Amino acid sequence: MAGNSFGQAFRISTFGESHGVGIGVVIDGCPAGLEIDLDFIQSELNRRRPGQSEITSPRNEADIVEILSGVFQNKSTGAPIALFIKNNDQRPDDYEHIKENWRPGHADFTYDQKYGFRDHRGGGRSSARETAARVMAGAVAKLLLAHHDIQISGYVSSVADIHVTLPYTQLDLEKTEENIVRCPEKATANKMIALIENIRDTGDTVGGVITCVAKKVPSGLGEPVFNKLQADLAAAMMSINAAKGFEIGSGFEGTKLKGSEFNDAFAADIDRKGHPRFKTITNHSGGVQGGISNGADLVFNVAFKAVSTLMKAQQTVDKEGKSVVLEGKGRHDPCVLPRAVPIVEAMCAIVLADHWLRNKMARMED
Amino acid sequence: MAGNSFGQAFRISTFGESHGVGIGVVIDGCPAGLEIDLDFIQSELNRRRPGQSEITSPRNEADIVEILSGVFQNKSTGAPIALFIKNNDQRPDDYEHIKENWRPGHADFTYDQKYGFRDHRGGGRSSARETAARVMAGAVAKLLLAHHDIQISGYVSSVADIHVTLPYTQLDLEKTEENIVRCPEKATANKMIALIENIRDTGDTVGGVITCVAKKVPSGLGEPVFNKLQADLAAAMMSINAAKGFEIGSGFEGTKLKGSEFNDAFAADIDRKGHPRFKTITNHSGGVQGGISNGADLVFNVAFKAVSTLMKAQQTVDKEGKSVVLEGKGRHDPCVLPRAVPIVEAMCAIVLADHWLRNKMARMED
Amino acid sequence: MAGNSFGQAFRISTFGESHGVGIGVVIDGCPAGLEIDLDFIQSELNRRRPGQSEITSPRNEADIVEILSGVFQNKSTGAPIALFIKNNDQRPDDYEHIKENWRPGHADFTYDQKYGFRDHRGGGRSSARETAARVMAGAVAKLLLAHHDIQISGYVSSVADIHVTLPYTQLDLEKTEENIVRCPEKATANKMIALIENIRDTGDTVGGVITCVAKKVPSGLGEPVFNKLQADLAAAMMSINAAKGFEIGSGFEGTKLKGSEFNDAFAADIDRKGHPRFKTITNHSGGVQGGISNGADLVFNVAFKAVSTLMKAQQTVDKEGKSVVLEGKGRHDPCVLPRAVPIVEAMCAIVLADHWLRNKMARMED
Amino acid sequence: MAGNSFGQAFRISTFGESHGVGIGVVIDGCPAGLEIDLDFIQSELNRRRPGQSEITSPRNEADIVEILSGVFQNKSTGAPIALFIKNNDQRPDDYEHIKENWRPGHADFTYDQKYGFRDHRGGGRSSARETAARVMAGAVAKLLLAHHDIQISGYVSSVADIHVTLPYTQLDLEKTEENIVRCPEKATANKMIALIENIRDTGDTVGGVITCVAKKVPSGLGEPVFNKLQADLAAAMMSINAAKGFEIGSGFEGTKLKGSEFNDAFAADIDRKGHPRFKTITNHSGGVQGGISNGADLVFNVAFKAVSTLMKAQQTVDKEGKSVVLEGKGRHDPCVLPRAVPIVEAMCAIVLADHWLRNKMARMED
Repeated sequence: MAGNSFGQAFRISTFGESHGVGIGVVIDGCPAGLEIDLDFIQSELNRRRPGQSEITSPRNEADIVEILSGVFQNKSTGAPIALFIKNNDQRPDDYEHIKENWRPGHADFTYDQKYGFRDHRGGGRSSARETAARVMAGAVAKLLLAHHDIQISGYVSSVADIHVTLPYTQLDLEKTEENIVRCPEKATANKMIALIENIRDTGDTVGGVITCVAKKVPSGLGEPVFNKLQADLAAAMMSINAAKGFEIGSGFEGTKLKGSEFNDAFAADIDRKGHPRFKTITNHSGGVQGGISNGADLVFNVAFKAVSTLMKAQQTVDKEGKSVVLEGKGRHDPCVLPRAVPIVEAMCAIVLADHWLRNKMARMED
Repeated sequence: MAGNSFGQAFRISTFGESHGVGIGVVIDGCPAGLEIDLDFIQSELNRRRPGQSEITSPRNEADIVEILSGVFQNKSTGAPIALFIKNNDQRPDDYEHIKENWRPGHADFTYDQKYGFRDHRGGGRSSARETAARVMAGAVAKLLLAHHDIQISGYVSSVADIHVTLPYTQLDLEKTEENIVRCPEKATANKMIALIENIRDTGDTVGGVITCVAKKVPSGLGEPVFNKLQADLAAAMMSINAAKGFEIGSGFEGTKLKGSEFNDAFAADIDRKGHPRFKTITNHSGGVQGGISNGADLVFNVAFKAVSTLMKAQQTVDKEGKSVVLEGKGRHDPCVLPRAVPIVEAMCAIVLADHWLRNKMARMED
Repeated sequence: MAGNSFGQAFRISTFGESHGVGIGVVIDGCPAGLEIDLDFIQSELNRRRPGQSEITSPRNEADIVEILSGVFQNKSTGAPIALFIKNNDQRPDDYEHIKENWRPGHADFTYDQKYGFRDHRGGGRSSARETAARVMAGAVAKLLLAHHDIQISGYVSSVADIHVTLPYTQLDLEKTEENIVRCPEKATANKMIALIENIRDTGDTVGGVITCVAKKVPSGLGEPVFNKLQADLAAAMMSINAAKGFEIGSGFEGTKLKGSEFNDAFAADIDRKGHPRFKTITNHSGGVQGGISNGADLVFNVAFKAVSTLMKAQQTVDKEGKSVVLEGKGRHDPCVLPRAVPIVEAMCAIVLADHWLRNKMARMED
Repeated sequence: MAGNSFGQAFRISTFGESHGVGIGVVIDGCPAGLEIDLDFIQSELNRRRPGQSEITSPRNEADIVEILSGVFQNKSTGAPIALFIKNNDQRPDDYEHIKENWRPGHADFTYDQKYGFRDHRGGGRSSARETAARVMAGAVAKLLLAHHDIQISGYVSSVADIHVTLPYTQLDLEKTEENIVRCPEKATANKMIALIENIRDTGDTVGGVITCVAKKVPSGLGEPVFNKLQADLAAAMMSINAAKGFEIGSGFEGTKLKGSEFNDAFAADIDRKGHPRFKTITNHSGGVQGGISNGADLVFNVAFKAVSTLMKAQQTVDKEGKSVVLEGKGRHDPCVLPRAVPIVEAMCAIVLADHWLRNKMARMED
């Protein structure tokens, strides 16, 4: 009933705190016989790690993945796969000043309310460092999905009010990794970077939106009625630190469309053997109908608020209710978006791997 | 692994199809000793039922709730509570024309892909009629929450591009039920109704947004890291038919704020006994920090697309891939929003009841 | 967290009380496309129903199954299958005398302790009538397993100290249904029946053991380490009313064997294509190794205590702690064993169907 | 759906293999504020560790517990508690001879059948070494239960056909740890030890029965109908390596009793304030009625087969189906019983901690 596991067939349980021994994940349900490419897991972690560029936190953690169980001769055995990262660059002293008061926008207050006390070092369990565990598990999910040609690509589509100008269908998503803000549109990326640097220099922070696209998702994934694909994706995304919104396909903007405009009309190609292959002409739905993937691209957006920790003074209260001024300290990101891209992709991969497995039980064998 | 259950401590499992025997729900985990007010459950169902006004589906179902189990002498016994509604006004012939082809925007295609065939009568399991089960279960959850003074109020905040003009804090939410579109701002409500009637008369449909507010939610609800309150709410909302987006607090719009603007500063009142009572001055977060309620109002929005079924001709394909024209038939809503208000509230109540119970296990008794 | 659901992939949730509206079950996870033979479900219920012979309860319930959802044109659709039996022959007045005191051996006391009060009519939720729901769900599981040739046969192997004389391998299990006590060894069956009749005539009751055999179970079912096949079977069996023990293979008696005696040696036949087909020469393990089926017969025993309700006076206490004499009243079985055979089979079928589905996800496709 | 987690409110997930990096467990749901006594966890591990006496495996692992997360200033924080033991004394070469063939009685064959291949080193995941993780988690559960005075005591009640002569009520369970076989009856313990040494010297192994008693369990624990206390206990016990049977209270032997003999009559003491305190005069039920604890001692037995690995030659087959002779190799226990006592206790503690937490949600607060 505690909430540190996610997924049903491909089920992950994460553990660890920002300034504890390390961060880990146990994956239960990865099918046996999957080649576990450790370099790939590491490369995904590298996309998330702090200190990777001038616009991310200067905390310098190499974040080296270690396999604790579940892999033999480079293959998953069907046993739980435990992955672990040791924490190295800890500076708990950076957090002594927040021991007795609560940072605005942070989980400090609510953890104290819920649990009676808290591990205040770097946010403890509430730190976004926990997402490293998700990225490791997501990398394994991606390896599983790659066997079925499913590809997941996230990118930063807006920072504050700077947006990409083109829809994803006209972007070259291979270019996302070419700049430090992870936006595939070069000119927009440059504007975003400039904005983040400006904001950083004032000690402030800024939010934005990540768009994620999954291609070659087969039709049939998703379990009506409560585990609709978009419901599980929404839960996955909204469980990421700082996420404040989720929308699929046309989302909020699409509520302004009439049914005759929104509906994605079906069409069919006839293949060489005379069998019809179905598709929709438009994709306002974002790849799901009735909670089940329809074979079109899966497309969704996730809104992230600005990072709560500022490098400038903020007014708050202490545990006695006295007003105090909180100085900005520690090492933090001015904008969470660039590092959140691999996290969004990871959670998407976990949801899809879970539903891929679950869908195997949907019908009697013919 | 199939997805017809929701919640962990307060767990509901729904069953039934649009044109089958009826629609039902089993609630497992309702504490013993709760007074079950059947009239209240019925009144909630009445808010959802078709045929309630000129802007809803003319399907005329009284939707009378029947208790099958779990209640003795008007109290919950701790046993599963099963609630059931018989289907009465079924016209399966209305659906013969869609047996061999797929309605755009509907689950017809994806159900066929996933399960190999489908109950095509009125959408079968994919029909929004399933949400009647959620409303019944939500009513029980509301009864549980009422013991702790928690109140949930949903309202239609936009239809197409017609929006309420004031934030919820300046609206009188008691007026929501005073008009058929369930918008508490009278002038806006009239515009919405006029728009929906216009759209209906052209055989088309329209979408919009529902805002939901839960007041007096105590701090402490929500289970890090995957069952954050906003994650479970998002899953709940995105599992509702036609939902395409979810946002909490400032949501997507809030991504444009800087951290210094977004952060909700803490303040404290000192009560008569000299104890501090904490609150936040603003509520951009929408009542959650680190996935746990902070005692402020819980506020979120849900985006609904326009209803897929049109009362006018649409182009589609049949199972052989041939182009066909689908005539509009059956009895459908031109706009799902007014009837979705009690559904959104119900799912919110179920999430909060679930987390209320789960939170009992968060810490050692003092 | 409340406990009215069982299974993960093939998941059942039961509801209903002895003297309420009826008894039902929702099956979530039955694959689409399974032919649902209503007559078969009914015939399984008939094997469990009261009033079927002189040695069972004279309560006369026809127990007619009704399908509420999930079946279309006689096939499962992938939606939850809800099955229901109306209660007919209720005599709540028979239970007025136990309202204020607790029957020895019954759940009366513990339900009051746990829930604060109870539905005392006929035991309410704690009545063995709840098992009718399991038999319905088990019948659906049997239909699923029949597609894979798996057959489940239970029989009464002892009543008090009267035992079958032969191991199951030498019994003709087709003869189980030829007598009212459901023991395939005719002479032993007659002794059992005579004993039960004697006991019944004194107003007393008697216990015994059911043996259950599942043939043609493929190797590979069972999920280490906690959902070992024998662990899930044990949970299933020990959840049946009056069950007090479970053992698989040689069980308790086998603890006296040395390893060299217990170990089931492997052998291999070479088939016509030159491929080895493996088997064990003995079957002390009862068909499982390391929690996974090995292809041998699955064999286990379930111990049932004597029915608690006697048709003679018993000493007990009332809610104030005063000694009272409880008269025997109502309509009860002198021996639960004959009617428990289909219940044991049903729970076995549910476990096997669940693991059949779960095993589909065990490894990467080749 | 994979089976490496157990419990719902107090939920454990184990990972690790016999000859991998180590063995670990993640506990999710331990309430915040519990003092985590590392020495106690270590002392429980010491009771399970190999090499502790002449009648256990000579494998010499210190099995030092390490806390990876969830504990801050010696208290649980509400975050997942991860505990880990590094493997030290590995000799994978000892297992090269079983790479291509299957040990009788072991999981070798079934793991190959299920997963397509296996980590053959020391049994990999199927090794009883996994139970070290359970003992660590069980120690935390015991710390939780100790707050409520619940005590759990297991002991070896039989080895082969040598039995304790007295019922547990007449034994001094504090003496269990005074001898290496963990039987509180000294004379019987000596006979057991002599037998095990004899068996060991012939290269053979032997089984037996463990009895477990939980005292001061309050009434009310257990969740009808599928998570009856005895059902969850049975699942817990039957998931332990080599367990073949479970019985509660009078168990299999009790099936010979008549209802009038079996029923535990109620009695009541009147306390000083005039309130009745209820108890049962006998305890054939073993502390549960209707699946819920009744306040009497919880008593159950677990049957363990003889260890499969022999230190003498056995006939088996290889993967091609050829007969081969398997030499006894490695370091193994001649009798699993003495080391299984802390494992049985641990699983019992986990079940009780889980139900303790779950019971908090059973009824409305008064």
